[in-house]
Amino acid sequence: MQNKYDDPMFFEKYGKMARSQKGLAGAGEWPALQALLPPLAGKRVLDLGCGYGWHCIYAAQQGAAAVTGVDVSEKMLQVAREKTLFPNVEYLLLPIEDIAFAPASFDVVLSSLALHYVADFAAVCQKVHACLAPGGAFIFSVEHPIFTASGPQDWLYDDAGNAVCWPVDNYFHEGARTAVFLGETVQKYHRTLTTYLSGLVQAGFAITDVVEPTPPTRLLAEDATMAQELRRPMMLLVAAQRR
Amino acid sequence: MQNKYDDPMFFEKYGKMARSQKGLAGAGEWPALQALLPPLAGKRVLDLGCGYGWHCIYAAQQGAAAVTGVDVSEKMLQVAREKTLFPNVEYLLLPIEDIAFAPASFDVVLSSLALHYVADFAAVCQKVHACLAPGGAFIFSVEHPIFTASGPQDWLYDDAGNAVCWPVDNYFHEGARTAVFLGETVQKYHRTLTTYLSGLVQAGFAITDVVEPTPPTRLLAEDATMAQELRRPMMLLVAAQRR
Repeated sequence: MQNKYDDPMFFEKYGKMARSQKGLAGAGEWPALQALLPPLAGKRVLDLGCGYGWHCIYAAQQGAAAVTGVDVSEKMLQVAREKTLFPNVEYLLLPIEDIAFAPASFDVVLSSLALHYVADFAAVCQKVHACLAPGGAFIFSVEHPIFTASGPQDWLYDDAGNAVCWPVDNYFHEGARTAVFLGETVQKYHRTLTTYLSGLVQAGFAITDVVEPTPPTRLLAEDATMAQELRRPMMLLVAAQRR
Repeated sequence: MQNKYDDPMFFEKYGKMARSQKGLAGAGEWPALQALLPPLAGKRVLDLGCGYGWHCIYAAQQGAAAVTGVDVSEKMLQVAREKTLFPNVEYLLLPIEDIAFAPASFDVVLSSLALHYVADFAAVCQKVHACLAPGGAFIFSVEHPIFTASGPQDWLYDDAGNAVCWPVDNYFHEGARTAVFLGETVQKYHRTLTTYLSGLVQAGFAITDVVEPTPPTRLLAEDATMAQELRRPMMLLVAAQRR
């Protein structure tokens, strides 16, 4: 995976986003992701692509026995270490693809908006399966396959600048896509819903829930531009259990 | 649900489609659906929206103990009864929404491209759950939420008539859509992936697989226009198990 978050310009821009400044409260999909998490008290938790550490800190606040956050960006982990006051949270500088934990090391593996940066989802599924205890939970959010399929991750506009529709194309042509995020080019990977869900099944997981979050009612009422978020799905949240 | 298949003109046009004339061999998604079915020998099978009865006949050929096909169209069932030579297959003239079987009447419930005609998917889930034996399988295909979201079920074309992209819009606005199929207007219902999958979970099912079929390699090689089918998902196949 690309280490875009160590790029100083990108890192600075990312730091100005609502979700970077407010943490989980600034992430519109957080209530939906939170609802998919099992109780974390006493659990050993792994966070793949932990970034600033918001989810690791949340797990520690919920009474997790031990929390491990993995991220490819040293700059993100520096911030995470500064923010984190719990001694039972550790951060590892590592691409997600390179994790190699002992069998049954964790009870819960979570990942927030990171797995679309990984080229080989099946390989990650196998590694997560290997390090989860039987019955353990794997919960993640990714950019929705409909959001990633075409590539540019933008609306189709008419001559007057109105968003005509969300364009879908090349859906079954999986692989790298170059999108613009915060004015910078970022490499992500498009894969189909089938690859995500059937991939989990083939790796030995049972799918326990699938949710496409919508903005909270409060945000829809406060911000008229939020209605656009109801025109197409942007994120996919998946809960699975190790069989 | 609308009883479009009893409309004489529509019924005649539908009868000329490859899938109508060739049966399962003429349905591109059949190998993918077949792969999701459990062994049917000795099973009690219910087919929701059975149409010409192809899937009922297949179940009987596989040694199903008893097969029930339900359809809202008398014309479709007339053809089904003529085609079906197995005495243990019965056909019932009934909208899918009106099924009311005794608890644990079936081991397998299947439905091929019919549930997008039903307004209330959650209600169907509850009824299927109620008439399935514990551990029983619910396998269905529907038009993909990406295919049904916008409404017209057609590509967006440029001035030269080229398909620019598949337009997605109104994704989270669920409900009736009027599409043109075989030159006739047909009323279908759009719902999100979340409504399908999370709906199953809430009704007491475990999701065991999710597949978006692509045309068989042979078809892609023989027919250049088939490549268009790789640009967007058209169908969603789901396998679930009654918990």
